[in-house]
Amino acid sequence: MIVLGSTGSIGVNTLNIARKFKLNVEVLVAGTNIELLNKQIEEFKPKKVVISRKEDIHKVNHTNVSFGEDAILKAIEESEAKTVVNALVGFLGLRPTLKAIECKKKIALANKESLVVAGKFIDQTKLSPIDSEHFALWYLLQDKKISSMTITASGGSFRDYPLEKLKDVSIKEALNHPNWSMGNKITIDSATMTNKMFELMEAAWLFDTRKLDAIIETKSLIHGLVNFEDGSSTAHIANASMQLPIAYAILGKCDEQVLQPVDLLKVGSLEFREIDKQRYPIWEVKDTILGNLDLGVVLNAANEVAVSRFLNSEISFLDVSKMSLDALERFSSVKPNSIDDIFEIDKEVRSYYDS
Amino acid sequence: MIVLGSTGSIGVNTLNIARKFKLNVEVLVAGTNIELLNKQIEEFKPKKVVISRKEDIHKVNHTNVSFGEDAILKAIEESEAKTVVNALVGFLGLRPTLKAIECKKKIALANKESLVVAGKFIDQTKLSPIDSEHFALWYLLQDKKISSMTITASGGSFRDYPLEKLKDVSIKEALNHPNWSMGNKITIDSATMTNKMFELMEAAWLFDTRKLDAIIETKSLIHGLVNFEDGSSTAHIANASMQLPIAYAILGKCDEQVLQPVDLLKVGSLEFREIDKQRYPIWEVKDTILGNLDLGVVLNAANEVAVSRFLNSEISFLDVSKMSLDALERFSSVKPNSIDDIFEIDKEVRSYYDS
Repeated sequence: MIVLGSTGSIGVNTLNIARKFKLNVEVLVAGTNIELLNKQIEEFKPKKVVISRKEDIHKVNHTNVSFGEDAILKAIEESEAKTVVNALVGFLGLRPTLKAIECKKKIALANKESLVVAGKFIDQTKLSPIDSEHFALWYLLQDKKISSMTITASGGSFRDYPLEKLKDVSIKEALNHPNWSMGNKITIDSATMTNKMFELMEAAWLFDTRKLDAIIETKSLIHGLVNFEDGSSTAHIANASMQLPIAYAILGKCDEQVLQPVDLLKVGSLEFREIDKQRYPIWEVKDTILGNLDLGVVLNAANEVAVSRFLNSEISFLDVSKMSLDALERFSSVKPNSIDDIFEIDKEVRSYYDS
Repeated sequence: MIVLGSTGSIGVNTLNIARKFKLNVEVLVAGTNIELLNKQIEEFKPKKVVISRKEDIHKVNHTNVSFGEDAILKAIEESEAKTVVNALVGFLGLRPTLKAIECKKKIALANKESLVVAGKFIDQTKLSPIDSEHFALWYLLQDKKISSMTITASGGSFRDYPLEKLKDVSIKEALNHPNWSMGNKITIDSATMTNKMFELMEAAWLFDTRKLDAIIETKSLIHGLVNFEDGSSTAHIANASMQLPIAYAILGKCDEQVLQPVDLLKVGSLEFREIDKQRYPIWEVKDTILGNLDLGVVLNAANEVAVSRFLNSEISFLDVSKMSLDALERFSSVKPNSIDDIFEIDKEVRSYYDS
């Protein structure tokens, strides 16, 4: 397989699965963590490596190293691997997803932005989502009439933080997620609840329904629930580790132990809370967004700019959601009719906020 | 269909389902609650009615009324209905189950004693269990490799009662179940945890596994969990009402609303606890019993005698479990080789304690 984003947390977990199930890794694509990449090269012996920056090439212990977005697309095109694990972060992951579809490869998709911004134009026939929530929903699907689906949120870094102090939180505090160890971007998206909004949009594309909602389950042990017409719900319970969704996305089926089972007696209790619009202002527009998935590219572009500004100490934490809400209002009438329009709208939103 | 035990809580729920789905009720079998039976007769217009006692016949508003166990068996034999709902309580339910199998009818089985005492001799091909726990397990079964199964218990009437006062509890207190409204026998069995032991034995017969356990979930909203080899668990969540298991047991499939869905935000939290052997002494022999299901007939007979004595104020609450444990030791070497042996052992155990 090809692993895009091998040194991030999804990438590392993907390689854990590759080790466990002795899967061949043909291409590794990574950013700037060359030290970890070199360890991965030593263990998995890929044929080809792609990194972000030209100036890092000499540090990579491999004879076939290239850099940049075009090199990623070329690597996908030229590879013999049947599976692409796309764990790139942000809009940047869209072109590789499109390329992998074009090359008829199976895609294990952790890049949620691909669906958020361009779900309309993405052929899902060979796509498996790597996201504990969507994995949970998929896992629960049976031949019964479904009424709605619920995914869970941890509530992120500021779930229990005093509301009035949210405007002054530090970057370090924002990156301190209670349940999941993840990359910076998604940890911030989790603190603003934008990540959960993305997941609802993903679920809308994946399961072809708008009857979707999210609630907070504070321990991140229940990941999704399917609510059936008969009044029953079923829940998927697993420890908070991406290895299980990854194993299923790559292997299709998995009858070996991947995670330690959850011991409910040790867990003791589970707690459910509403997603509060005061704490998570983005939740105000949940219905608007589920009613108009075209807004995905707008929300994503504004949010990517905003998160990067917050991480550069240019704006405050609360400004992140404010920028997203502002963009959704300003660009409320977008109507992408092709994948080219998606790239166009993305550029337009970014340049508005970058100026 | 034929409803055995129509005036008990399962019977009433069964008739709710019959009303909702416009099902034909051919025979009603009831005990001594003639007032309710007459209302049921008026609404469902059965062809035939069977009651417990000869002296009540004149009170029943129907032209075709008989009484006693043989009349039940005859009614099953002569009926055209394809489905028998067996909601009789105790060992008394076994012969009707056997008769319904003999007559090749579909059996919706709420009489758990049929499997507990004689699972070995019961052909399950046309049997659907009416029990929220087994329904939950069945509902969750998918084509994945199962590691084990867990059912839940409410903990019964004395879950939170001071341990040292258990010996002095009144009958009224014992009948006050926190989550379920059920008949007297099963409410006592729930307080002693004997009911959960019965359900584990049933599950062993139904799902052909011994990797079974039970835990307390205090709100009775999660009824069963299936634990898979991969480390995931799935849970069935529904409000505490038997109407859903009944609907599935009778209809096979159900895509209409039967229950109000559980609102986890209103629920707020779920709590899990171990089944404590001090509070529930019967739990001491869980492994012994799961290792030797032949003991079901012994446990059931001793427990039926004990519960009836407790309800007659002849013994204390703690004596109920003591009698069961005593019987399991005294009759530990039973080896029933036929259904006749089951009736023989049942008689032997009862006569030992009745003397």
